[in-house]
Amino acid sequence: MAEPQDRAVRRRAGRPPRALLGTDKITRAALKLVELEGYRGLTMAALARRLNVAPSALYNHVRSKQDVLLLVEEDLMGRVEVSGFATDPWPDAVRAWAWSYRNVFARHAPLIPVIAVLPVTDAPRTLMMYEAVTTGFARAGWPEDQIVDAIVALESFIFGSALDVGAPADIFDTGTLAAQTPSFTAAVRRRAAAAQDNGAPGAAESDRAFALGLEALLAGLSAGLAPGSAGAPG
Amino acid sequence: MAEPQDRAVRRRAGRPPRALLGTDKITRAALKLVELEGYRGLTMAALARRLNVAPSALYNHVRSKQDVLLLVEEDLMGRVEVSGFATDPWPDAVRAWAWSYRNVFARHAPLIPVIAVLPVTDAPRTLMMYEAVTTGFARAGWPEDQIVDAIVALESFIFGSALDVGAPADIFDTGTLAAQTPSFTAAVRRRAAAAQDNGAPGAAESDRAFALGLEALLAGLSAGLAPGSAGAPG
Repeated sequence: MAEPQDRAVRRRAGRPPRALLGTDKITRAALKLVELEGYRGLTMAALARRLNVAPSALYNHVRSKQDVLLLVEEDLMGRVEVSGFATDPWPDAVRAWAWSYRNVFARHAPLIPVIAVLPVTDAPRTLMMYEAVTTGFARAGWPEDQIVDAIVALESFIFGSALDVGAPADIFDTGTLAAQTPSFTAAVRRRAAAAQDNGAPGAAESDRAFALGLEALLAGLSAGLAPGSAGAPG
Repeated sequence: MAEPQDRAVRRRAGRPPRALLGTDKITRAALKLVELEGYRGLTMAALARRLNVAPSALYNHVRSKQDVLLLVEEDLMGRVEVSGFATDPWPDAVRAWAWSYRNVFARHAPLIPVIAVLPVTDAPRTLMMYEAVTTGFARAGWPEDQIVDAIVALESFIFGSALDVGAPADIFDTGTLAAQTPSFTAAVRRRAAAAQDNGAPGAAESDRAFALGLEALLAGLSAGLAPGSAGAPG
């Protein structure tokens, strides 16, 4: 991929282009750091070390860790599939968006709790994602005051499901307590058997739960539930 | 709350009972540490310091951080409301369970990515929660091989929604990019206005999105969707 123009980068004779520091390079290094060491591994000092530059060189491009997070958010959100919202029926567009959104974040799970609460201000690609989705909802006849709530509800399901992709295969192993939990133990075994029939067990279980929940959400949302029709109990 | 009996605790004359180290006390200290410093703050050394005991004293009760996480999981899952599954109609029982589950984890958000993938083996209270839920699903006529997928789908929505409770009120502020994102900007403003009418804006927005998604999930799941009826696109 070509390095984008960056006014802080001044190319010097004799330096190979790949050595140039730019936002693309910083983004990739930040994602790699999180992949290797979790979110706690993402510090400005560690990022500079990984890029093999002085911290001052890094600060020529990003003012703070907050700036790095914005780059990462932009990169991940730019990979989410929204093209269907301009052309396809609403359930198809939501389905393609939701699967791609889940898959992007399943590969970067430590960032989920961070991105889920990160403001989208000053994040043009992220905002274009939301604009495309909102336009698709409006085109499908959604009342304007319910669109963001519906998107947030879907995103909550997507983020939680992206976490579930990382669950170990034995997460529901009841072990020595199987006799005290007969219904759950039986249901867990039936689930594993059903997923086994379909190929890779671990991933297949997550995919089945995601498909079930997403189709239920789509059906329920399509039925045009008014928000607040059932409030919080108690 | 009374400290439970613990064979590793030997009461000595002259020591007040509240100074005794036990699993309840360790659990409360662990939750407090996470609240104050995030998940990264939860280390055995920090826990010993907070409890004002030598690390060796702590290791008399828990062998590892994994043990501490199990205590925390047990404590949080024990607070989730499951009594409705024995008596109430399925949607009412799920509704009460889901709201209490979300509220418990919203107050301990840094633990969400950890607990979401933590095995339930050797966690009797957690397993009793799943047993109660599974029994309720079976009683409502759910096929045994779909119950765990449905629970996981609901939990994914619950965990993601618990994260959303912590989102800042301005998370969708489009700022200087408002003109380029007219549909989304208008929908965000309409959402804020609708939530404002109902009292506290930030919390009200999260609650509305949760209510909308939960009611849609309940309606869709009630309609008895078969999993895999729509697979992953592409």
